[in-house]
Amino acid sequence: MMLADLPSIKFLQQPTTSGWVEQAIAHLDTLLLDHSHCERKAAGVAVNLMFRYPAHTKLVRMLTAIAQEELQHFEQVNQWLERRGIALGLLPAPPYGTLLNAQIRKQEPQRLLDTLLVCGLIEARSHERLGLLARHCPEPDLAAFYQELMASEARHYGVYWLLATTYFDRDSVSQRLEALAVVESQILSTLHPEPRIHS
Amino acid sequence: MMLADLPSIKFLQQPTTSGWVEQAIAHLDTLLLDHSHCERKAAGVAVNLMFRYPAHTKLVRMLTAIAQEELQHFEQVNQWLERRGIALGLLPAPPYGTLLNAQIRKQEPQRLLDTLLVCGLIEARSHERLGLLARHCPEPDLAAFYQELMASEARHYGVYWLLATTYFDRDSVSQRLEALAVVESQILSTLHPEPRIHS
Ligand SMILES: [Fe+2]
Ligand SMILES: [Fe+2]
Ligand SMILES: [Fe+2]
Ligand SMILES: [Fe+2]
Repeated sequence: MMLADLPSIKFLQQPTTSGWVEQAIAHLDTLLLDHSHCERKAAGVAVNLMFRYPAHTKLVRMLTAIAQEELQHFEQVNQWLERRGIALGLLPAPPYGTLLNAQIRKQEPQRLLDTLLVCGLIEARSHERLGLLARHCPEPDLAAFYQELMASEARHYGVYWLLATTYFDRDSVSQRLEALAVVESQILSTLHPEPRIHS
Repeated sequence: MMLADLPSIKFLQQPTTSGWVEQAIAHLDTLLLDHSHCERKAAGVAVNLMFRYPAHTKLVRMLTAIAQEELQHFEQVNQWLERRGIALGLLPAPPYGTLLNAQIRKQEPQRLLDTLLVCGLIEARSHERLGLLARHCPEPDLAAFYQELMASEARHYGVYWLLATTYFDRDSVSQRLEALAVVESQILSTLHPEPRIHS
């Protein structure tokens, strides 16, 4: 199943600050290593969801496509690391993912709804930030790479939104998305001291 | 990173019996559904290994390629299910995976070695059995599909072997592979009553 072009939707409650952009541009190598971890995690989350809901056909088919794309991004970022002589290795994650995941309710079906929307919000924020990197990165080749990835992350947001509205009614989805988006912006309102995609 | 053509190696201790072939051909639809689960699990295992050893560059890069191919196989098998009107859904797994995984030692570095070899053995057995399906399946289109997948699984076996010999000396790898291969054949020596790829 191919990922169709889906409209990107206005949903992030607060835009990224110029403080993050300055921090990111000053630490491009660290950001690339963190980005590698983000792409691997994005693939891992999609695969885990496929395992958790093996009989949700539409979810399984669409997340197969997302997982494949994230693995391709992961490999592309790793090629950038290799070209720049940066070794693959651990990098402490910022609190963003943990804090957002803590918002996911434990009971089904809320768990599925929240998971899809948290995934969607992370994709949306990645889309926004890769776009900022594409615009502000002083290295043209790397900027072009960010530009290329940016478009995929918007489509991924669209897929998670589409899946949410497949399994839940549109009003519940919109309401819950808004509440989660407020939290997401709140988490990012204090710049994390370590440069990260989601610092 | 592309998966290079790697030589397939003689290592399975016992060939699959004609009893399995008869059982499989008599239950092609069930086998396809089980096959879908196998491909998803193969992708999941590769992704999990990438998470467990994030600084093992060669492992990460080669398993990224394997995970992508397994997701592609998963999608292809799911297209077959769709064409035949078989719904995605749970199917109790045969004891094969659990029994083989129980052979993996818990301490590193043995855990890594055993995991790579167990994965390799599963790929090798899949290669052999998809080959048997390609030869004996009475539906030419489906037989051609099995023939196509068969070649990938042999390459996957080769990759797991190559990774094992990257991180461990060749003699330890050969010895341990032989011991695990004996267990693998032993597990399959009694045909599981439910038709499965690894029954
Ligand atoms: Fe991505
Ligand atoms: Fe994404
Ligand atoms: Fe496969
Ligand atoms: Fe495989």
